[in-house]
Amino acid sequence: MKRAVVLLSGGLDSATVLAIARAEGFACHALSVDYGQRHDAELAAAARVAAALGAAEHRTAKLDLSMFGGSALTDRTIDVPTGGVKPGEIPVTYVPARNTIFLSLALAYAETRGAEAIFFGANAVDYSGYPDCRPEYMQAFERLANLATKAGVEGRPMRVVTPLISLTKAEIIRQGVALGVDYGLTVSCYQADPEGRACGACDACRLRRAGFLAAGVPDPTRYYAPPAG
Amino acid sequence: MKRAVVLLSGGLDSATVLAIARAEGFACHALSVDYGQRHDAELAAAARVAAALGAAEHRTAKLDLSMFGGSALTDRTIDVPTGGVKPGEIPVTYVPARNTIFLSLALAYAETRGAEAIFFGANAVDYSGYPDCRPEYMQAFERLANLATKAGVEGRPMRVVTPLISLTKAEIIRQGVALGVDYGLTVSCYQADPEGRACGACDACRLRRAGFLAAGVPDPTRYYAPPAG
Repeated sequence: MKRAVVLLSGGLDSATVLAIARAEGFACHALSVDYGQRHDAELAAAARVAAALGAAEHRTAKLDLSMFGGSALTDRTIDVPTGGVKPGEIPVTYVPARNTIFLSLALAYAETRGAEAIFFGANAVDYSGYPDCRPEYMQAFERLANLATKAGVEGRPMRVVTPLISLTKAEIIRQGVALGVDYGLTVSCYQADPEGRACGACDACRLRRAGFLAAGVPDPTRYYAPPAG
Repeated sequence: MKRAVVLLSGGLDSATVLAIARAEGFACHALSVDYGQRHDAELAAAARVAAALGAAEHRTAKLDLSMFGGSALTDRTIDVPTGGVKPGEIPVTYVPARNTIFLSLALAYAETRGAEAIFFGANAVDYSGYPDCRPEYMQAFERLANLATKAGVEGRPMRVVTPLISLTKAEIIRQGVALGVDYGLTVSCYQADPEGRACGACDACRLRRAGFLAAGVPDPTRYYAPPAG
């Protein structure tokens, strides 16, 4: 059976990607990263999602990126923004080199498991401000991966698959619903409480809620405060 | 003052690279990685080397790569080879995607510190079997780095500098000695004891010892067994 590593944050996008990879017939090795994120309720969500969507294996790598600082997601002294994403601006929730680190870990995992693909829920539409969510970045990583590994040298190339990269949040949700994803299991909020309930106000909450509205799908998110908008 | 991140394993090569970066006038932010390597005495060596060579800062990232397995350096059930490196063969000491992970961490560190360069002691001569030590791999990482980061997008490019990439071990040692590196502080052995003493038999020990002999420099390495050759 063909194998894939799926980066699984526990949020809406990566749950959809896991469902897509399964539907394409891959045995899925799900990888989460405990990187010191303030919204670590997403890690428990990732475990629930991996089980619900039939991942073959689920591993969580622990790596404290707060040692470097520089992001609202790992530095408790920087507030999580709630004012919406501005076009052309990189938000303070950007974590330096995060996707490069995540993809590198996925590459290590993929090589040891004999996987031929890494599935990654990057999205260039909602998060156009993150440089490491762009298609040209993904292509550069795939090129690097095939120079980096024993598998690449020996003629077993690695593909980096980003099925959501040019979809809107509403399109992602519709695709996930069609594949049976239970979004009530997922956590997207940047400041989720320990039970995984959402603030309803941060940029991640706003994008997610607007996506459910646009998709015409009831929002299953549990909030600890009334959601904005 | 211009800043650089220097990947510092605690071995001979990376100590030389730190000395080179300092000689080029960089304030050096040294980064070591505690990745579950069996030769973790090299981490104590890295701290000694960072202090001796005047690093501005030294950080150690903790990330257990043994969770993925697949290498003699992280899997205690795989023996460290002592029979010499065979041309064209990737040794079992290869750690899947290790250099990609290390460079990714260095990139995160570099971006948060405003560094313009990552110095890395990769060497394509002695370790021609490792795919992620080749010049084309380094160029691909540099390209990726400049697509990945806020700094890259904003026109502050990152350089990946590999001053040792085409040097022999003897040439590296001669350059380090000229720059005042005390190689007695460093640990290269794949199965060093907790005090940092070397086995004298593994491939890393053989390459290192042959380098001192070829350079005409007395070998300052402390061995726990009589060295081979």
